[in-house]
Formats: sequence, C-alpha cells, structure tokens
Amino acid sequence: MKPPPLIGDIEGAHARIRPHIHRTPLMTSRSLDRETGASLVFKCENLQKTGSFKARGATNAVLALPADTTAVATHSSGNHAAAVAHAAALRGLPAHVVMPETAPAAKKAAVETYGGTITCCPPTLAAREEAAARVVAETGAALIPPFDDPQVVAGQGTAAIELIADAPHPLDMILVPVGGGGLLAGTLLAASAHAPRAAVIGVEPEAADDAARGFRSRTLQPQVVPVATIADGVTTAMSPMTFEVMCWLARDIVTVSETAIIAAMRRIWERLKIIVEPSCALPLAAILERKVDVAGLRVGIILTGGNVDLDRLPWSR
Amino acid sequence: MKPPPLIGDIEGAHARIRPHIHRTPLMTSRSLDRETGASLVFKCENLQKTGSFKARGATNAVLALPADTTAVATHSSGNHAAAVAHAAALRGLPAHVVMPETAPAAKKAAVETYGGTITCCPPTLAAREEAAARVVAETGAALIPPFDDPQVVAGQGTAAIELIADAPHPLDMILVPVGGGGLLAGTLLAASAHAPRAAVIGVEPEAADDAARGFRSRTLQPQVVPVATIADGVTTAMSPMTFEVMCWLARDIVTVSETAIIAAMRRIWERLKIIVEPSCALPLAAILERKVDVAGLRVGIILTGGNVDLDRLPWSR
Repeated sequence: MKPPPLIGDIEGAHARIRPHIHRTPLMTSRSLDRETGASLVFKCENLQKTGSFKARGATNAVLALPADTTAVATHSSGNHAAAVAHAAALRGLPAHVVMPETAPAAKKAAVETYGGTITCCPPTLAAREEAAARVVAETGAALIPPFDDPQVVAGQGTAAIELIADAPHPLDMILVPVGGGGLLAGTLLAASAHAPRAAVIGVEPEAADDAARGFRSRTLQPQVVPVATIADGVTTAMSPMTFEVMCWLARDIVTVSETAIIAAMRRIWERLKIIVEPSCALPLAAILERKVDVAGLRVGIILTGGNVDLDRLPWSR
Repeated sequence: MKPPPLIGDIEGAHARIRPHIHRTPLMTSRSLDRETGASLVFKCENLQKTGSFKARGATNAVLALPADTTAVATHSSGNHAAAVAHAAALRGLPAHVVMPETAPAAKKAAVETYGGTITCCPPTLAAREEAAARVVAETGAALIPPFDDPQVVAGQGTAAIELIADAPHPLDMILVPVGGGGLLAGTLLAASAHAPRAAVIGVEPEAADDAARGFRSRTLQPQVVPVATIADGVTTAMSPMTFEVMCWLARDIVTVSETAIIAAMRRIWERLKIIVEPSCALPLAAILERKVDVAGLRVGIILTGGNVDLDRLPWSR
C-alpha cells in the first residue's frame, strides 16, 4: 500500500497548484435549503479548469515530479485524462494518455485540446494497464495514476481545504461522491485537520457500491462489473490506500438509487443554474432519498465536475 | 414618453437593492477567448435571485414605492413576473400577476413560490393589459411595468454598474440582448457615465428585429407578430422611452439567426458550465456570426437569465 498524504502534503499541494487552478466559488440555494431543512454549501468544481476537480490532483502530481522528467502518462476514460494533459502543458511536458477505444469523442477532444497524445486500447482495465506500461517503457514518461497516488490524493484534498475556509459558517457535515476514493481520501484527511467536527460521508450509486460494502466489511471489495450507473465518474473500485483512509476516517458510506441521482442532478441544474455531471448529484441524492439526516445541519457538498454530453441528458432518454 | 432615469437614479437603485440581490459573478473562458480573438467577460445574471436580471428592476421599483402602498401588480409571461412576486415579498406586499393562460407551468410555479397571486387571461397583449387594469382598479395595487418605467430601467442598469466595476480591465465593448429595451437602456445610461469609452451594442434575433429597424429608421417600430424565435425573453417591442435612450446612446443594433442563437447557447453551456436561457446567447451569437468585430477587444456580455425548460432543449428538438 502506498502511504497516504499528511495534512502538510495537502497544504503544500494547495500552495503549489494555487496559481494554476481556479478557487472555485461556493453556491447556496434558499429553495434547496427549504426543501432539505439544512444549510447546503456547494463547492463548484464543475467550474474548475478542465471541468472537474481532477485538475487539482493531476496538477499537484505533475508539478511535484522531478526536474528531469521528460514526459507524463496516464490511462483514463474520463476527467483525469484531460486533467493530466492540462497539467503536463503547464510544465511544457508531452502527455501520453491511454484511452479505451470506446471513450466518448468529447473526452478525446478535451485531451487533444490540451495537447495530449492519445493511445487507444481495448476497453478493459487489463488492456489499459498494459498499454500504459508499454507507453511508459517506450517514452520514459512518469505515470500519474487517477487516484492511487499520495500527490494526487493531496491535490484532491485542496478542494475541501477551500470549501472549509470559504464556507460562511463551520460545517457539520461534508458529503462527497466515492469512485476510486481519491477525492474522499483527500477530503477526509483535509477535514480531520481543518474541520474535525465535520462528519465526512461518502456517497456512491447502489449499482457501484464497492466502497459501502468495503466500509461495512472492513475488507477492500472489487467492483461488480459491468457497472450499470449513470454516474460514470464513480465506477472504479478503490485502492488499498484510499480504502484505508476511508475505513479510519469516514463517518459513513451510503448508497443511492439511479432515480435519485437523476432527480438530484436535475434539481441542481434547475436551482443552481449550473451544469453538473451525474456523479455530482450523489450527495444531494442521498439527502433527497433520506440516506443521510441533515435536518438543521450545515452541510458542505463537493460538486465534482461538469463534463456531460448535452445530447444525451438522463431525463430525456 | 416617460423620462429615462439619470445616472444618479441608477446608483441610487444600486444602493437600494444591493442587500436584496446577488452581486453575480463574472466568468471568463480561455477557450472562448481563443475562439473569438477577444477577451470576453460574462456577467452571470442567470445566477441572480429569481434566475434573471429582472430581479434588479422589479426590486428597485417595488422598494421605491410610497410607504402606503398596499399591493403591487404586473402582467408578464416571463421572468419579470417572478421578479415582481419576489420583490413584493421583500416588502410583505401581495403581488397580483396577470399571466396568459398559455404561460409555461414552470413560470406560473415560480410566481407562486414567491407568494404571488396569478390571474389568468387570454394570450393577447390587449387582454393582458385589460386584465392588469382591472386588477389594479379592484385592488389598488401599484403597477410595475416590465420595462417602460424609470425605476425599472434604473434597476436593470445596476448589472452594468457591477460588470464595469468588477471587470479585470476597462471594457471596449458591452453587448446586451434587446427585447423591450429595459436592460439595454439601463446599460447605455450606466456605461455612458461609468465606461464612456465602451461601445454598447444591442443584439436581437432576426425574427424579432424591431429595435434594429427602429435604430436605422429612427422611428419606433412595432414587433411583427407572431414572433418566431427561440429567444422568448426578447419578443416584446420597445417603449418610447427605451427607444429614445437607444437612439441617443447605442453604438449599433445587430441581428442574429436562430441557428447562431442555438449554437451560442450550447457553447456557453459547454464552456462556462452554466445554464443560460436562449436570450442570453444573443451577444455570443453576434460574435460567432461576425455581426460585430471584437478582434483584440475586451468585451463585457450580460447573461440575462437561466430559466429554461430542461425537457425541451433546442438542440434536441
């Protein structure tokens, strides 16, 4: 198991990436507060560079690489791919991104926009890892994993640092989506130092509940494949490191239905007037579905990204 | 003709409404700047209370009413209706809103959310005005017109005051949509005092080009009905007052195609990750369609509102 970052690593990450990322705004909604009986504060990482919080971890990891690094590489079908390409461009490094042939054209275009080079591979994890290993061997590139990396987790934790610092009041609870667990681990570590009274709860789809099963059984669980959830950002299983941090520090892990995810996503669009991808909706879905009790609480929610296919909205399928 | 407000009226409006409205954020997009060759600054009135800039004018007009006012009234099928209901609630006054039977359910629901009372009428301007006059006669309510009113125009001008004050650099140009002309007139008056070097240009759909025809002919023009544009926020004709301000102060009025409006609306959703209604897209449509030359310019754009039917997006029709 790789060692998790310390709070000093997260604060160091914040100092390092601050010139290169947006300090994204917080949003509130009186009508959502009325509906939920809580005071909700949304951290808008959908407005982050590259359209997701992944820019934080990728930028931190890339900037922390040794001075003699000649290239970076990663494998991802989602937001991490664009984030690594963007971060590499900040240092003038070439980025090699292994993507499954089935990745949406928009995701590929984002990588290319930032100057990344795409290597296509069959759409299996084994094929992706093999292709990434080959790219690393051929180019000498440094691999930037999507979540199983202390510098990546430290970078993701900076979103919670800002949420806690910018919230108009101390937070009683922080809700974040759980996929590979990079954001959850970073948030847990940041909150344990900067908002120790806040209960941090992870939310995942019922259809991708490896974290919840692992949290209950205290044993790292595989994801059941194929994963049938609209929340395409949270379909990966956790790593030993993110799993360990979750088990030590999370208050709970809850799951939500697909119907609740779609309804919550739409509610955010309508009330906050911002574009969020389905994974963003997990925390509000947990509130609306009463999987967490937020009555009277001040709750921070990290909205993870805004990269969504406008031609295929879930409520018009 | 009613007298237009003076710059002191706009500044006074700003002081009056500031505690009750959001100082909406400005947004920028490196990729839109690259695409247009300009530095674009978007003033996000889609994130305003009630979801549009109309909250500014309505709040100013309602708060400026005499202390012995017992009720307010208006007729509108759009954002002004919710804005008046919201403003009336701030003063604890009942709001009577005349709406056409054909108004979308979402618009009616918004009025009711803020405690307004809806009176339905047939969907013609004559029927609306008649119903409004009847409501005023029966209730003694003060009528808050959607744009032909100095206090309403003064309130709308506060968006430009903030845009100019918060922009990271002096603006060379300000682009706003034109419907009844309340926002255009307020922007023109505000900019003439606070950003006299900025060229203010109004944009309207080709299919609702009364302002452009009036600007060229120097004669107030009627709207040609029925108006066939997706930009439902700008289908009304101007008033003598807003027309006069336009003729004196606007640099130009340009028109854009429906195709360009839809493309620009989608571009804003994709790049800024925010929900804007079709009328918002007029200025960017004018840039993309090369109806205005923005090369090398610093351009302020007022995004007017975010109230859109998510079940009927223009690109999925």
